Amino acid sequence: MISETTTVASAQTHAPHRLVSLVTGVAVREACRNGTHTETTSGLAPTYLQANLIILPSRYAADFRIFCARNPVPCPLMAESSAVGRFDEVKSWVAGLSGEEIVSQVDIRRDAPKYMVYRDSKLVKVECSDVVEHWTEDHVAFLIGCSFSFESALAKAGLEARHSIMNRTNPMYRTNIPLCPAGVFTSSTYVVSMRPYKRTEIEAVRNITQPYIATHGEPIAWGWDAAERLGISNIDTPDWGAPPLTLAGRPLGEHVGSEDEIPVFWGCGVTPQEAVMKADLKGTIMAHAPGHMLLLDCRDWNIVKEK
Amino acid sequence: MISETTTVASAQTHAPHRLVSLVTGVAVREACRNGTHTETTSGLAPTYLQANLIILPSRYAADFRIFCARNPVPCPLMAESSAVGRFDEVKSWVAGLSGEEIVSQVDIRRDAPKYMVYRDSKLVKVECSDVVEHWTEDHVAFLIGCSFSFESALAKAGLEARHSIMNRTNPMYRTNIPLCPAGVFTSSTYVVSMRPYKRTEIEAVRNITQPYIATHGEPIAWGWDAAERLGISNIDTPDWGAPPLTLAGRPLGEHVGSEDEIPVFWGCGVTPQEAVMKADLKGTIMAHAPGHMLLLDCRDWNIVKEK
Repeated sequence: MISETTTVASAQTHAPHRLVSLVTGVAVREACRNGTHTETTSGLAPTYLQANLIILPSRYAADFRIFCARNPVPCPLMAESSAVGRFDEVKSWVAGLSGEEIVSQVDIRRDAPKYMVYRDSKLVKVECSDVVEHWTEDHVAFLIGCSFSFESALAKAGLEARHSIMNRTNPMYRTNIPLCPAGVFTSSTYVVSMRPYKRTEIEAVRNITQPYIATHGEPIAWGWDAAERLGISNIDTPDWGAPPLTLAGRPLGEHVGSEDEIPVFWGCGVTPQEAVMKADLKGTIMAHAPGHMLLLDCRDWNIVKEK
Repeated sequence: MISETTTVASAQTHAPHRLVSLVTGVAVREACRNGTHTETTSGLAPTYLQANLIILPSRYAADFRIFCARNPVPCPLMAESSAVGRFDEVKSWVAGLSGEEIVSQVDIRRDAPKYMVYRDSKLVKVECSDVVEHWTEDHVAFLIGCSFSFESALAKAGLEARHSIMNRTNPMYRTNIPLCPAGVFTSSTYVVSMRPYKRTEIEAVRNITQPYIATHGEPIAWGWDAAERLGISNIDTPDWGAPPLTLAGRPLGEHVGSEDEIPVFWGCGVTPQEAVMKADLKGTIMAHAPGHMLLLDCRDWNIVKEK
């Protein structure tokens, strides 16, 4: 049962999830490119993988690859530009998948619904529709797995993500958990996404998401005490996305301490954007707007790693 | 200049580094197997890789592989038993190296200088010379990279590890930095090894160790404030290994807060032993004694990953 309050809140952060034509990766990319889709990609084109984007000057690329290798849970590197300056072709970092199988017919500068632009590590443009004017021959794009990719599997098991039920962008938070530094990328901390579940559902949620190694895998923490340990002081004020709600449409934070529904945290591909801002990098860096991902051509079962 | 106090301390934790015959992996393994070498392996057989060991009942193997994949800095998985119950042959997890190239002619139950034995997640045997009587047909051995492996490279650059200069076992510490959980492995935290360096040497130390991805790579933190952040309250009381010294043979902790020499921390392959103890696993688990590694046949240059 969704209250009127919720409906209003949802309208402010609405996602046209049910656009029946957006059922494949390429359809979503085209809709973003021609400006007909500009909202969150959560729930779009079920089973098609979605990717976080970070686009760096080439001199930072080597350190960034090592940064991802050392922090694979928040930063599971799936692919990168096939060469410096290429926005239309990627090479794969996923064993068993070619770059072309991950995504083809792509324009990385225009195919996400919204972008962020950073200059000299400061955010200078929020939620712009493309980054064509900022892209240069010296840029390298990196595609990083996204936890939206396991939401089809959760929904199939009767564990649909709350933000998806409520038609909202999922909440994301900064934490105080340090990442392993690599080259210029020092002093960064995890960003996490959050979905509330009952304590009795945690085992199933962990088991279902664990095989999605390339898209953050199982949660990194769960419970109200975990929220505190991560340094999240108020669950109702996420750093990105919409505040989380109970099924009755109430703020989740009203239930702090209750065991009925607890927050469950996953590594989040917004982490590199935080890392970039903390690393004092020079030049222009681009990224997707949190929650507004690049849709891929490969499917969730292509990257599931069975035990 | 090494003070008399230090000499006594060193004698208690001495390592016969200079045994000229122990210059290859197989020579060290044989010396361990026949009981003629029982001390730390730091400094032995330079350029030959060394490995941490953890030996688990097979039912925990799948979760452990995922645990390593999610925490590759403290737990860089290099190889495992070629099949359940095999202690004499490994299969490789390192791209470009076969199991046989990593180590052959091995008896994992006897070829480390000293072992630890855990039963139902409690430590029941400390520093025994072999684990032949505990090994069963159901055990799987995992070999995890060791930071001794980049010490030859550091020494070559004039940055010899302090514990190696002082002929001691390197200090290792528990921290409060959480690891990413995987299946039964929850609630674990990083274990780190420490080597003191001058602040002006940090950049070189980071650059030299960064390419050793398979053996912990570059440091995860450095500085006195980092020690505090990691939850290390007293640098002079490591949880494993010998207390660290200045070059003058004084306790390093006398210099807390000074910028002259600062502690530098790396991920440590003792981490899985901590994880096992916190995970409440059933049955018999074996491991090397911290600082007392299994020597391999491959060389440090075999696993260096250039940018």
